[in-house]
Amino acid sequence: MLDRPTPLRNVPEPDIALAERLFDILKKETADTEGVTRAAYGKGEQFAHDLIIAEAHKVRLPTWVDAGGNLYVRLEGTGKDRKTIIVGSHLDSVPMGGNYDGAAGVLTGLAVIVAWQRAGFRLKDDLVVMVTRAEESNWFPHSYIGSKSALGLLPDYALDVKRSDTGRTLADHMTELGLKPDVVRAGVPQIKPENLRAYIEMHIEQGPVLIEKELPAALVTSIRGSFRYREARVLGEYAHSGAVPRAYRHDAVVGAADLIMRLQQEWLRFEAEGHDMVYTVGMLSTDPVQHAFSKISGDVRLSIDVRSHSVPTLDKMRERLLTIVAEVEAMHRVKVNLGALTGSSPAVMDRKLLNSFGDAMDEVGAPRFEMACGAGHDAAVFAGLGVPTLMLFVRNQNGSHNPDEAMEMADFAVVTRILAQGLTMMS
Amino acid sequence: MLDRPTPLRNVPEPDIALAERLFDILKKETADTEGVTRAAYGKGEQFAHDLIIAEAHKVRLPTWVDAGGNLYVRLEGTGKDRKTIIVGSHLDSVPMGGNYDGAAGVLTGLAVIVAWQRAGFRLKDDLVVMVTRAEESNWFPHSYIGSKSALGLLPDYALDVKRSDTGRTLADHMTELGLKPDVVRAGVPQIKPENLRAYIEMHIEQGPVLIEKELPAALVTSIRGSFRYREARVLGEYAHSGAVPRAYRHDAVVGAADLIMRLQQEWLRFEAEGHDMVYTVGMLSTDPVQHAFSKISGDVRLSIDVRSHSVPTLDKMRERLLTIVAEVEAMHRVKVNLGALTGSSPAVMDRKLLNSFGDAMDEVGAPRFEMACGAGHDAAVFAGLGVPTLMLFVRNQNGSHNPDEAMEMADFAVVTRILAQGLTMMS
Repeated sequence: MLDRPTPLRNVPEPDIALAERLFDILKKETADTEGVTRAAYGKGEQFAHDLIIAEAHKVRLPTWVDAGGNLYVRLEGTGKDRKTIIVGSHLDSVPMGGNYDGAAGVLTGLAVIVAWQRAGFRLKDDLVVMVTRAEESNWFPHSYIGSKSALGLLPDYALDVKRSDTGRTLADHMTELGLKPDVVRAGVPQIKPENLRAYIEMHIEQGPVLIEKELPAALVTSIRGSFRYREARVLGEYAHSGAVPRAYRHDAVVGAADLIMRLQQEWLRFEAEGHDMVYTVGMLSTDPVQHAFSKISGDVRLSIDVRSHSVPTLDKMRERLLTIVAEVEAMHRVKVNLGALTGSSPAVMDRKLLNSFGDAMDEVGAPRFEMACGAGHDAAVFAGLGVPTLMLFVRNQNGSHNPDEAMEMADFAVVTRILAQGLTMMS
Repeated sequence: MLDRPTPLRNVPEPDIALAERLFDILKKETADTEGVTRAAYGKGEQFAHDLIIAEAHKVRLPTWVDAGGNLYVRLEGTGKDRKTIIVGSHLDSVPMGGNYDGAAGVLTGLAVIVAWQRAGFRLKDDLVVMVTRAEESNWFPHSYIGSKSALGLLPDYALDVKRSDTGRTLADHMTELGLKPDVVRAGVPQIKPENLRAYIEMHIEQGPVLIEKELPAALVTSIRGSFRYREARVLGEYAHSGAVPRAYRHDAVVGAADLIMRLQQEWLRFEAEGHDMVYTVGMLSTDPVQHAFSKISGDVRLSIDVRSHSVPTLDKMRERLLTIVAEVEAMHRVKVNLGALTGSSPAVMDRKLLNSFGDAMDEVGAPRFEMACGAGHDAAVFAGLGVPTLMLFVRNQNGSHNPDEAMEMADFAVVTRILAQGLTMMS
């Protein structure tokens, strides 16, 4: 038996049962061979959007779909000079992904807004549950398509990128759903940042920290920025593995392995100096057309991903990387082509919101806990425009982007109650 | 202008012009888009065998083709208790390979045997130019098919391996050429090692040593043996690159890179201790189906190839490798599955032959130079049976197994004259 939770202070309880029912429907109706598949601007995502619209209309909450297909459910506020508080998240998933990445953030908002509408409860500000499109960049290789289009920030060329499965453009897919790609292309903002009081996004934790610490929820202090060399190459010379002595070798595998380990050592040093940073080589490969077990490799490809919530840390690590590359080139007689540099800026969450929602955690009886977020989220786009922004994490097992995501409804209830309480305590 | 070479002592000059003419014909008639292609038991190899038979018959040298398709050209000796000296090599090539790997060793023998037949010159022993089949294991994934079948050593299952391009079995391809796969399968020796005085193989050097040392030729002291893990795997856990701190990672890429570098360090230590050894990771890859630049890798595959002419060195390195694997597993919280272990024994060349042919180098005016051979050759099969065996290297640029092999005819002439002189100086 669970302890009866501390009652919320002056706030109607969110409708956790509604959220649980919708999780079940989503899981069943968007099921794939394994897990769920809700393609951006595809069948699964559209089904999920329609489901939210139907539930909103059941309790007479007005909805609006913008030019780029983002969905808004609104509970009007009571204040004269009212602004808007957005609780946002997405409903697309990676192929054969889990049921909670994205959906948890939408349903936490819906559980609050529907319960409050039923109870006739209002904030001074408008409360909007926003459902963004295409947050998972595997479908269209571009970050934050939905939130950028809502804010008039989506670059022109992004409308022409092709979906990884259909090969058709983003504009095509928008048109197919009756949306207005031309308005998006023209950069017409669908919402105005200056009218926003706050943007709040709840998400499953994609790492193991809350599991390890046995905590149900966390407040996110910042979203890490990054720099990336997605297609770096180490170039050496192919040669016979038996016939070429070490002194004559230009071994791309040894060059790449040494590069990876020197960067790993650098990470340890950065950690010891107190920097927030993660470093990952996720893709690594000799050339499958040319490699052989008896051939010294002349060509290794690898991706390099470095993230931190500190811009100076990212800059320092990039500088160190260039030095290390030169060392590796000299040591192993190879050439390193880092290729195109991409990345994103860190996004800092609003300290006032952190404090208010920290107080809400106290009210709800959940231990206060703050942590950095390593993955990118739509919240970064709002924070980047100066909108006071907050993210909440809910405990989740087995990471995300896989069918084994395992958020417990008890934890979802805790974080949804923190959200409800916190919304009334914002200063 | 070249200096006029020192005349050979009591030996007719080999017919270098004949070899040059046949190199040209082979190059033209077995040309591919790039380089030459002479598939084992295929059109190109058969053309080359027929060419040798025709040249032998022009000077009335008898030829014989054994059950497995190896070709023998014989110059009868004058001795009563005569044995046979084989000068052997192969005529198949890798796809789009060079014109010299294999062919140089056959034509060096032919240049000698044809010239001696014309001059009426005889050794006490029979001199046989042997052309082995299928030395390049890319066609049928089995080593030394021709020489093993000649010696009755080819395992039964090898007859059923399929050619990489046609998908048809070795037995099928033998039958197609009118050969006798059943005799090969029964393990009937076509030549008897106890009747052999020596097996001598000349080959282009596949590394850069002779180029660097500016020497035309070398005597090979040994053919390196090896141990191999062709399909080793480092297993970790896939996770989000941004969301999982270092302490919780099981990063297969870092595990693999550290394994590669620790083995590389070990190689340096072995070298410093005076061991003959080479170590190569030629194939390395994250799983292309699952990897992503934003994903910590859970699975890396790699090949490990270690060669040495010393069995104790191979044993010691394999032992060190197992210790290093355990260190890497503990350090990075990954599992290393080394997979199947394969390998071959080192083959030591006959010291008496080395001395005799060293004397021949003095006679010919070529600097004496001995080196180890890193690649495998048919000579290893004969040496493994206790046949006194020798290999000669000729200088060659750009390695082998590629269209850019570049042996010069002047160097070929030097090594062929060493061969001719050496054959008469064997004690």
